[in-house]
Amino acid sequence: MAAISSLSLKTPTKIQSLTKTHYAIPLNLPFSCRSKSKRTGSIGSRIRIRCGLLIEPDGGKLVELFVEESQRELKREDALKLPKIKLTKIDLEWVHVLSEGWASPLKGFMREDEFLQTLHFNSIRLEDGSVVNMSVPIVLAIDDSQKNLIGGSSSVALVDDENTPIAILSDIEIYKHNKEERIARTWGTTAPGLPYVDEAITHSGNWLIGGDLKVIDPVKYNDGLDRFRLSPAELRDEFTRRNADAVFAFQLRNPVHNGHALLMTDTRRRLLEMGYKNPVLLLHPLGGYTKADDVPLHWRMKQHEKVLEDGVLDPETTVVSIFPSPMHYAGPTEVQWHAKARINAGANFYIVGRDPAGMSHPLEKRDLYDADHGKKVLSMAPGLERLNILPFRVAAYDKTKNGMAFFDPSRPQDFIFISGTKMRTLAKNNENPPDGFMCPGGWKVLVEYYDSLAAAENGRVAEPVPS
Amino acid sequence: MAAISSLSLKTPTKIQSLTKTHYAIPLNLPFSCRSKSKRTGSIGSRIRIRCGLLIEPDGGKLVELFVEESQRELKREDALKLPKIKLTKIDLEWVHVLSEGWASPLKGFMREDEFLQTLHFNSIRLEDGSVVNMSVPIVLAIDDSQKNLIGGSSSVALVDDENTPIAILSDIEIYKHNKEERIARTWGTTAPGLPYVDEAITHSGNWLIGGDLKVIDPVKYNDGLDRFRLSPAELRDEFTRRNADAVFAFQLRNPVHNGHALLMTDTRRRLLEMGYKNPVLLLHPLGGYTKADDVPLHWRMKQHEKVLEDGVLDPETTVVSIFPSPMHYAGPTEVQWHAKARINAGANFYIVGRDPAGMSHPLEKRDLYDADHGKKVLSMAPGLERLNILPFRVAAYDKTKNGMAFFDPSRPQDFIFISGTKMRTLAKNNENPPDGFMCPGGWKVLVEYYDSLAAAENGRVAEPVPS
Repeated sequence: MAAISSLSLKTPTKIQSLTKTHYAIPLNLPFSCRSKSKRTGSIGSRIRIRCGLLIEPDGGKLVELFVEESQRELKREDALKLPKIKLTKIDLEWVHVLSEGWASPLKGFMREDEFLQTLHFNSIRLEDGSVVNMSVPIVLAIDDSQKNLIGGSSSVALVDDENTPIAILSDIEIYKHNKEERIARTWGTTAPGLPYVDEAITHSGNWLIGGDLKVIDPVKYNDGLDRFRLSPAELRDEFTRRNADAVFAFQLRNPVHNGHALLMTDTRRRLLEMGYKNPVLLLHPLGGYTKADDVPLHWRMKQHEKVLEDGVLDPETTVVSIFPSPMHYAGPTEVQWHAKARINAGANFYIVGRDPAGMSHPLEKRDLYDADHGKKVLSMAPGLERLNILPFRVAAYDKTKNGMAFFDPSRPQDFIFISGTKMRTLAKNNENPPDGFMCPGGWKVLVEYYDSLAAAENGRVAEPVPS
Repeated sequence: MAAISSLSLKTPTKIQSLTKTHYAIPLNLPFSCRSKSKRTGSIGSRIRIRCGLLIEPDGGKLVELFVEESQRELKREDALKLPKIKLTKIDLEWVHVLSEGWASPLKGFMREDEFLQTLHFNSIRLEDGSVVNMSVPIVLAIDDSQKNLIGGSSSVALVDDENTPIAILSDIEIYKHNKEERIARTWGTTAPGLPYVDEAITHSGNWLIGGDLKVIDPVKYNDGLDRFRLSPAELRDEFTRRNADAVFAFQLRNPVHNGHALLMTDTRRRLLEMGYKNPVLLLHPLGGYTKADDVPLHWRMKQHEKVLEDGVLDPETTVVSIFPSPMHYAGPTEVQWHAKARINAGANFYIVGRDPAGMSHPLEKRDLYDADHGKKVLSMAPGLERLNILPFRVAAYDKTKNGMAFFDPSRPQDFIFISGTKMRTLAKNNENPPDGFMCPGGWKVLVEYYDSLAAAENGRVAEPVPS
């Protein structure tokens, strides 16, 4: 992964020069915007003032929930004296999400008022009366014994598998975790077999604990991909550095084919036509929990790298980064979260596809959600009025052009639709898609991934490391 | 029911003098407010301009969906030529609700945009960007054969059991009725046994039809209670006539006991203390569909009459009327509808009790909703910011006073809590509650009702007419 190894945006206190890569391009811009930011050298106390051209974060200011560097040792010692809550892998992903402000203005795991507003209204009213979107509960479950352990303490330490303190949750509130109601209102079904529910809810505790979060050390995964996990603040810096006057976000959790590339290129063209001078693409694969039959993050990043090497997307106007959220597969409810989080990262345009965050119904032979509902719900969602929704134009394989093209309903006979299922079947069988569907390097990664699966006895390798 | 027979508010074109009753009191008020209203003699074209003291209807103006009187014959003939949709009893109740503007600014059964916003946001954004609350889907289901029958017609006739045209739905939109998703998002459960679901959804069609509603003749039930079914416009007239400067609504679907009366009297006292000069109570029993083990409307009205005759509530400051909506038993979701509809009727204060619109979980041994969630959700609900929420103070039987009093936690031993279940058990067994729990006349009605049930062979009489 040589082409991306030179990216080093994750040092918060100084701006390093960046070599030219597909991922982040240094431009010699005047830093007039940045001079408005108050920086004291620690992440926790950064207050970012809106830079002219980027959309404001929800609530007006990006919330970062890090303990100041000088206070970390002290907080680590404090944490050792507090009742401990052990975090699951998904809990830790949410700690990551919260700490970097993707869910701004949330200041920690939801208290009951925030949880109820999320479930009923997909939005939260702030003290000044304004409304921000918030469609997916970001909550921390505990069981009876943990609740008893906490007793009357107003703070708890959140610890990892090895009891290392990760964060402190203070001014806590413990309230009932009605799982059935949470599931029904979030997914619109309670059918058994929803991946996130099976993974993170069914066996979780009957209580939720909310409070103010302070993370002692920024969350790292040490999986070789941390350098791609740019925070909203870092992305905003990057967009500002590139002098972007429009940022269009493309959420994905699948391999990129040339139809996607066409869409992204065409979107930039349309934005230029609209009068923007420098629209920048945020190509933003989801990096948190995904279901077992999705292509794992490592393989996807490898595939994205090949696609970008192929030159299908312009590196000057593309930023690739990992979105750390876990996946709910909650369709129209979740697509709002995906869009809202990207506002916080500076995106003012959001590309929405057919059936976003959708999946098959776990019991019935149909899609769980109407394919058009995601787009419709997103376009009407409270708190997202500032965001421009760009509906995905349908691309298909055009036999007359030997490549992907926008579907032309006047000559349907010329087009072949290659669904995700079809694509997976081809890759699994080591067959090739039609020329021009995906760059050969990217396709090779997919075939390698499915080979590695087949090689494993049980047919499933949870997270194989790419060669 | 002599005491209420003299009420005759239902003539829209002239104001009749009213004899003094518990239900509506004529006051000699200057009609300055009324003179601002544009009246042309027909209901359909009435435009009511807000009278100074009453809260504005949602969307700024009360929507009434009646065909003008002069056009009725014509519309009836038109309707006969249109594809016909037969209305169920509950459909007809919704036609009634919509036609009188309880759901203002809705102009008919929901189209998909309104349906989706209701399910996901419990609110609808209007063209001017403002938001009104709308938590319960008001939809009309049709099946495949009805959909085929409609074909390409842009309007349909809504007819009763005898094929008499009731209304026309025009500029129609037909969209999928995903029952599971509707139920999950409205009730927060999909457990079998939800009364409204069993009654109105499970066996309904797989399509919903929305459009603009025009009702040919105002809906009447001819059950002797129509005169108590005051529309929002008529209630507003009544409040204006009484010179009310605050209207506090009390939704109920149960017999009134002295604890309720204490609460209502105390609420008025508190409003006077707040500086209001003439707070008026809207005692507003729900008149639409209720589940089989609720006390039927006729018996409840008879019971309310006895309670009022007993002088527990001041007739000068109380308006009793029937709210025509069917009941969902959807807890925190439904309480918003109950409150919102009362804004349209002129109420700016809403009394909310413990577990409003709640019921037992149909499968599990617990209440379906957290008893506090209704109040919390209501207080945070989008579009209800203008409404003042008055939490129900807990009243119980005070043994030291031989009557209902607000519970005093410093002397719990002095109080007896008489639950609805306990009350029903006593009445069924022809036993008396403690003196002062309910006026004897009101209690007698309850006992009579349960006697009539016991007399029926199957133990249930759907809607027995009170003696």
